Amino acid sequence: MTSTAIRSGIAALREAYRRGDLRVADVAERAATAEAPDGVWISRVEPGALRRRAAELQGKEHLPLYGIPFAVKDNIDVAGMPTTAACPAFAYPAARTAPVVERLLEAGAMLVGKTNLDQFATGLTGTRSPYGAVQSVYGGGLVAGGSSSGSAVAVAAGLVAFALGTDTAGSGRVPAAMNGIVGLKPTRGLLSTLGVVPACRSLDCVSVFALDVADAAAVLGAAAGPQDGDPWSRTGSFKSQEAATVRLGLARPDTLDFEGDRGQAERYVAAGVALSRITADATAVDLGPLLEAGALLYEGPWVAERLAGLEDFLREHAEDVLPLTLGILRSGGSFAATDAFRAQHRLRELRAATARLFERIDVLALPTVPTTYTIDEIAAEPLRRNAILGRYTQFANLLDLAVLTVPNGHTPDGRPASLSLIGPAFAEPTLLALGAALLGEAHAVHLGKTQDVELAVVGHHLRGEARNGELVALGGRYARTTRTADCYRLYRLPSGVPGLVRAGAGEGAPIEVEIWRLPAAALGPLLGSVAAPLSIGYVSTVDGASVQGFLCEAYAAAGAQDITAGGGWRAHRQEEGS
Amino acid sequence: MTSTAIRSGIAALREAYRRGDLRVADVAERAATAEAPDGVWISRVEPGALRRRAAELQGKEHLPLYGIPFAVKDNIDVAGMPTTAACPAFAYPAARTAPVVERLLEAGAMLVGKTNLDQFATGLTGTRSPYGAVQSVYGGGLVAGGSSSGSAVAVAAGLVAFALGTDTAGSGRVPAAMNGIVGLKPTRGLLSTLGVVPACRSLDCVSVFALDVADAAAVLGAAAGPQDGDPWSRTGSFKSQEAATVRLGLARPDTLDFEGDRGQAERYVAAGVALSRITADATAVDLGPLLEAGALLYEGPWVAERLAGLEDFLREHAEDVLPLTLGILRSGGSFAATDAFRAQHRLRELRAATARLFERIDVLALPTVPTTYTIDEIAAEPLRRNAILGRYTQFANLLDLAVLTVPNGHTPDGRPASLSLIGPAFAEPTLLALGAALLGEAHAVHLGKTQDVELAVVGHHLRGEARNGELVALGGRYARTTRTADCYRLYRLPSGVPGLVRAGAGEGAPIEVEIWRLPAAALGPLLGSVAAPLSIGYVSTVDGASVQGFLCEAYAAAGAQDITAGGGWRAHRQEEGS
Repeated sequence: MTSTAIRSGIAALREAYRRGDLRVADVAERAATAEAPDGVWISRVEPGALRRRAAELQGKEHLPLYGIPFAVKDNIDVAGMPTTAACPAFAYPAARTAPVVERLLEAGAMLVGKTNLDQFATGLTGTRSPYGAVQSVYGGGLVAGGSSSGSAVAVAAGLVAFALGTDTAGSGRVPAAMNGIVGLKPTRGLLSTLGVVPACRSLDCVSVFALDVADAAAVLGAAAGPQDGDPWSRTGSFKSQEAATVRLGLARPDTLDFEGDRGQAERYVAAGVALSRITADATAVDLGPLLEAGALLYEGPWVAERLAGLEDFLREHAEDVLPLTLGILRSGGSFAATDAFRAQHRLRELRAATARLFERIDVLALPTVPTTYTIDEIAAEPLRRNAILGRYTQFANLLDLAVLTVPNGHTPDGRPASLSLIGPAFAEPTLLALGAALLGEAHAVHLGKTQDVELAVVGHHLRGEARNGELVALGGRYARTTRTADCYRLYRLPSGVPGLVRAGAGEGAPIEVEIWRLPAAALGPLLGSVAAPLSIGYVSTVDGASVQGFLCEAYAAAGAQDITAGGGWRAHRQEEGS
Repeated sequence: MTSTAIRSGIAALREAYRRGDLRVADVAERAATAEAPDGVWISRVEPGALRRRAAELQGKEHLPLYGIPFAVKDNIDVAGMPTTAACPAFAYPAARTAPVVERLLEAGAMLVGKTNLDQFATGLTGTRSPYGAVQSVYGGGLVAGGSSSGSAVAVAAGLVAFALGTDTAGSGRVPAAMNGIVGLKPTRGLLSTLGVVPACRSLDCVSVFALDVADAAAVLGAAAGPQDGDPWSRTGSFKSQEAATVRLGLARPDTLDFEGDRGQAERYVAAGVALSRITADATAVDLGPLLEAGALLYEGPWVAERLAGLEDFLREHAEDVLPLTLGILRSGGSFAATDAFRAQHRLRELRAATARLFERIDVLALPTVPTTYTIDEIAAEPLRRNAILGRYTQFANLLDLAVLTVPNGHTPDGRPASLSLIGPAFAEPTLLALGAALLGEAHAVHLGKTQDVELAVVGHHLRGEARNGELVALGGRYARTTRTADCYRLYRLPSGVPGLVRAGAGEGAPIEVEIWRLPAAALGPLLGSVAAPLSIGYVSTVDGASVQGFLCEAYAAAGAQDITAGGGWRAHRQEEGS
């Protein structure tokens, strides 16, 4: 076997296993011995344990992550290994594996090791660790970004196929940007944070690093789900749209600041052009409210939330903490409870403004980082440049947003550029679909069972007809126009309403229908707005598919006008008009 | 006209208007001149303005609150009147009427005046006001309860038909309890708090006092709705159940404490018996997590949220604030931001425990107050006894619950008893239905359009059949068994699935169906779990009603076994088995 094999993503590994080109034992062997860039690992799974895991997976080829090597950030518990949070004095042996890791293991994945991070996940540079500053795989002294520095480099360097990070201010996105890979920061609570060392508990997310969008989706599918005993666990209905229907938001240029980095600015413009060709439309967005929310995180009282979990430890171990990190954490002690409540009140207003924004657009595309820095540049201005790296990421969790970070080519001087696709909570399917379309990933991205359905409408719900507004009000989007199979007859009922009735094979004609996508939950209200003899059932389309759609009970055809010959309601209306 | 007329509720007033027994001008005249108990009003609408309002309402009899006199607590803005929050030094002339009041005026209601309250809505006694301590309509020196003391007494004394209060720790419920009336504390954000003087902004609710449950429902229907510009405004799907289907929770006796008030304890037991006769079942509930959450409100850092809004004012005007109130507010200054975040983390855990509770039960019935106090008793121990009054109310907003408070008879010594029906957010329709059933209100309570539908099922979804579990999993409840009109035929499709097809009049037979109640949003997933030729449309029942139900497309009857003669799927299955 070659090292290229491990450098592959999930799909390629699975295919190699299937064809017999590769065995899980081979991958385990290489993982046990592979040399890693400096500072990536804090602890590694022992070679013997890796071999046992490979043996244990025999016969489990059906599992979705069968034999896929992965890493987890060392602020996430794995039973039998220490959890350090990059602070040796804080380290403890984990008694239980975090449920989010447990799910991945149950899905067949193979844990390779635990990765370096900015101490206590506080920082976005990847340089704040006693285990060493981590360098980007792009070299040239560029920082790996943090706080999930080791996880991002482990994926980008091909040590694992995917890795878990955590993300409070951007720790799951900035390192993806600095290493040219995909980073998915899911909706808060979608991945359980039980067994994760808290940073800001109300904001912390577990995140996913992967080589492509499909892999990120596959990991999300295996890792997500409600978790008993985790008070931050949430469920909700996913919002799923095809890329072509996305209303895109792009930053209004006067609210952007690349710190003079022309290469990054050019890449953002290029991404905007590429996205505009894929999406339904694009509008300019004032970033003001988002930037204001972001400023609350490090400059406002949320620093006290970081301190809240560590105050007891710091009292005993101040000298064991990096001075920079200690200073940041202790600054949380200067805020009063009144400050916290006032900031939360302001945040509520900013959230409301954000909710209004996401009524106008579906996805906001922003640069992930304004610019990049080297390890030396960060050392020269550690706080200010850290804050700059977080400019376009740190508002997301405060505002309850989901974000997919994707590679966006390179600057002329060879540094990585990155784009963040930002949507409201539970917009992951839409973000993944748009990200896959942008990266030209051939395979469609499916996030388990989404809650949208396709519905065929035939009459008053067609675009331009009287009841079309109801579809729109219920969250519906026009998808396409097609025709039914040739076994349907169309009637105009005495009430004036058209009704589609299925007849025997060959006893009808193809009838024009519009296919709309809408949330499954909308079907109830939609049915409630009509009456007998209409129903919602299944319509066979001309291409042999079966989609949900409006039907009419056959008994009502007696006494109704048969308008099948026209081929559809619109044709009938035109005849009427003529 | 007589004073009895105004003492009436909304339905009686509307009926008197309709019959011509009473004119709005009469009610306006009496409202302008009626004598009120001491300390109820802080300001009254001028007689001339009341007359103009009566004239303005002429011809608007169709409005739902046409000519209904009401009051608002004086921490809610009404344009042209001062807002005092019971602190003259704080008073300001309101420029805009609060949107929640605006909605009531648009619905035809007639504002009579603004009512007294515990200063800054801080307190549950009704005695903390420079405008006078308010006495309960029950007399004997009993406190009216607070903070919405004046609003409750205005309703109980017949000065108005309903009134708005506010409720953070119980201010919309304790005064209802102390005056023998209905108090509805809706889900946070359902009624806009724009134009309301903040207490704890993240918890504050506008509440409704009324004479009966139907009136409270009518006011809620007019006042509720999303509000632009109010970041705390929320929407959600109402949960609606009939009383008979409610799974009731009653306090486990060892977690209750009536402070030795045997009369109140007896009334609670009596209410439990009465409710158990109405509901589906009843289980004992450990109140521990709720009481712990409640303690956070006055003993924990949420006092700082009260201070957050008033800190600037207090700096200049400490001597203008009641010493007791000043002391409470200032105590908020002793909490650090870290305290606030730690308490919020604990609250998150208690919310998760509460969510689990409301998976097991639908409504928790508790005493509204453990006992009652006189004005002298409160003066003797103002803080401790205030805290006792809030024992069973103060957790509700922290835990995001909705509560309906209803009268519960009297103690042997003639004091009012009260019951609080507590449900999760957006459970108002269920609470109102149960409250109406308990009070024996003849008219069903309907909260505008609820989101539940009735669905007729005919085959595999019947109780005991293979797919019945899907109905239950989707939140469905069995309602009743009935038959269709005699125009239906029942088939057994080649797949073994039964299908109900409507034929011409008289060409079928009555077919047994079960009616299930389930959320409208469940119809989509339900339809998604079946396939052609099944659909969900409308079924005519034997009593002439039309309910939503499963149907089968007629084309599929060809080649299917006609089992109409048996009269239903169960009968057919029995024949099969025999």
